Amino acid sequence: MTVRTPVSGALAPLLESVRTGSPLVHAITNSVVTGFTANVLLAIGAAPAMVDIPGEAGPFARIASGLLINLGTPHDEQRTAMREAARAASAAGTPWVLDPVAIGALPIRTALAAELLELRPTVIRGNASEIIALAGQGAGGRGVDATDSPESALDAALGLARTAGSVVAVSGPTDVITDGERIVRASNGHALLTKVTGGGCALGAVMAGFAAQGDDRLETTVAAVTAYNVAAEIAAQQSYGPGTFAVNFLDALAALTPDELDARAALA
Amino acid sequence: MTVRTPVSGALAPLLESVRTGSPLVHAITNSVVTGFTANVLLAIGAAPAMVDIPGEAGPFARIASGLLINLGTPHDEQRTAMREAARAASAAGTPWVLDPVAIGALPIRTALAAELLELRPTVIRGNASEIIALAGQGAGGRGVDATDSPESALDAALGLARTAGSVVAVSGPTDVITDGERIVRASNGHALLTKVTGGGCALGAVMAGFAAQGDDRLETTVAAVTAYNVAAEIAAQQSYGPGTFAVNFLDALAALTPDELDARAALA
Amino acid sequence: MTVRTPVSGALAPLLESVRTGSPLVHAITNSVVTGFTANVLLAIGAAPAMVDIPGEAGPFARIASGLLINLGTPHDEQRTAMREAARAASAAGTPWVLDPVAIGALPIRTALAAELLELRPTVIRGNASEIIALAGQGAGGRGVDATDSPESALDAALGLARTAGSVVAVSGPTDVITDGERIVRASNGHALLTKVTGGGCALGAVMAGFAAQGDDRLETTVAAVTAYNVAAEIAAQQSYGPGTFAVNFLDALAALTPDELDARAALA
Repeated sequence: MTVRTPVSGALAPLLESVRTGSPLVHAITNSVVTGFTANVLLAIGAAPAMVDIPGEAGPFARIASGLLINLGTPHDEQRTAMREAARAASAAGTPWVLDPVAIGALPIRTALAAELLELRPTVIRGNASEIIALAGQGAGGRGVDATDSPESALDAALGLARTAGSVVAVSGPTDVITDGERIVRASNGHALLTKVTGGGCALGAVMAGFAAQGDDRLETTVAAVTAYNVAAEIAAQQSYGPGTFAVNFLDALAALTPDELDARAALA
Repeated sequence: MTVRTPVSGALAPLLESVRTGSPLVHAITNSVVTGFTANVLLAIGAAPAMVDIPGEAGPFARIASGLLINLGTPHDEQRTAMREAARAASAAGTPWVLDPVAIGALPIRTALAAELLELRPTVIRGNASEIIALAGQGAGGRGVDATDSPESALDAALGLARTAGSVVAVSGPTDVITDGERIVRASNGHALLTKVTGGGCALGAVMAGFAAQGDDRLETTVAAVTAYNVAAEIAAQQSYGPGTFAVNFLDALAALTPDELDARAALA
Repeated sequence: MTVRTPVSGALAPLLESVRTGSPLVHAITNSVVTGFTANVLLAIGAAPAMVDIPGEAGPFARIASGLLINLGTPHDEQRTAMREAARAASAAGTPWVLDPVAIGALPIRTALAAELLELRPTVIRGNASEIIALAGQGAGGRGVDATDSPESALDAALGLARTAGSVVAVSGPTDVITDGERIVRASNGHALLTKVTGGGCALGAVMAGFAAQGDDRLETTVAAVTAYNVAAEIAAQQSYGPGTFAVNFLDALAALTPDELDARAALA
């Protein structure tokens, strides 16, 4: 009983708006992908800031345009900073993205993800295993790998979207994105993105940047996913492997035009 | 009542000296830019070491050739390590650079920067907003962006240089560098450097490396800024965007000759 | 009185096995090289996971295929996580690699390395200064640089291998690898690898991945070293400096075939 609504016409203006508005994206993310995430944000036109200590994360989340909380390496100070930032973002109306990396398999982040979920993230991004684990329906994967397909996580995603009031984006060869009512399947992308660390994590930060530029967060999330994945397709055409791909991907994100985005979007 | 002295003839020998001396640069820096900073140091010919825990940072600052303290993500242990290292460097005569990232806007690092300032850094590097905030004349920017121009920070830079006994380098399209008496304006560089995370932060580490190779720290700072920015100009000529630029920049730093540096330096 | 045994015929099948088995490599490593290490693991065909907090590191080491513990920036939480992971790996039979970065010179990691050594690492990887320091025969280097040659560390390596029951790999222009009885000298590689941060550290993670795919850990270590260094040789042929080299190196790791590995291996 879900409504399937393709998002049309919204992509190009949103990319344009990120470019001109340069949203300040506050990212509290894992130590493996900080540099790549910041470079992705700069390439797409956003302004990154990684403020992840208690006492600063809260105040900063209040003035940021968008916030990412990624649970990849949740050190003690970061966990406190994450709680502080999520609360401040919720109170201030700053859109925020939760990326529950590897929950299910690992106890501390699993408990933290459940706690943060109560603060009702604007967007939740994960692979199928993580979304199923967050929805309380599974035991999680073995780490950052998706061992389930996005379609197998559809019920979990819909349930999670409805109870948390979030847009839920499940990554995979075809991404499934839902707000609990509408469902969009986004098929752009390239397998090389899974061979670059942060290929998924940095997308969470881009979602936070796009969420700052529009009120319909299903639309902003679809736009973020599609801009990111179209750039990956373009980059892959000139790459010899994961090294050149990561470099070309940043160039392609920076060069992507709103028209190209609309022309190449593969949504259903 | 300031003396304007172009630095001439000093650049090429200082780059030569970094290449042959391979100064050991102790960098306590933020988690976003550690890898890029280490690669920049290796490319220019220095030897990087990121020793940022209490109990090790002090002893290491004593044997290092130069030290960078960058406040980008000042975790609790790092703050203790920074105090320890700055004190040890001051006591041992190790030149050290303070980069007060995003102070003014964020409370914990602002207090820490004020504390470190009393230890009289050899060099202070920041954008105009940060320098104004450190000099106590402004409220700071919104993060790592400069919202003021270097020229607008000139009085703050001169005051800071005189009270702290430091060389102060204000970054921007034209950098302003002063020791409180002499003022040098350095106009090399390329806008793509602002699209690579660590583009500013890594320069602080390079300044620490050059400071180890000469006694006139206005000269060593100008040489570091100019070598770095000339390499950026060369790299930009063959780049398609921020991804290829970051890669070519490392190649250009490694390939830069003392003669090219002198030939391309744009100083006033 | 050591037996010199070239490892022949084992390399190609081990690379093949890493590609098809995609071992899950648990890396607790320093903040400078996390991203590069993860990208190297992905390129070679392994699955990286950086789980470095107490309460998660132990459980994860039990399910991982292999574990790396690298002492480059041993923050307080990481030290606890390292102890937990090493104990769990030893108990579960998960092969694990110890990389005692910069011990000798720095007190906290030196004590920690001695403590971890009692848990009998499967493989110990370091430069000559580090191996000599770990064996208790020297005062250590000035940081990550090797100031001694691998051959000068041969006695230390043999002693360490015998007392700890480990394979010991000493890095240098020619690597020396021993299990206390057999000695292999591996001469592939390229000097540009020393100009990329993580050039040595990431190899430790690759050793953990290969160790998961075979029982003879002298063989798996030699295979890891050789695959890594052959990829470096191939990458260097098309590189203009350390920037392009790091990118091409990832491509070369991903493209390396078992046949090429056997054909180019330089072992004695």
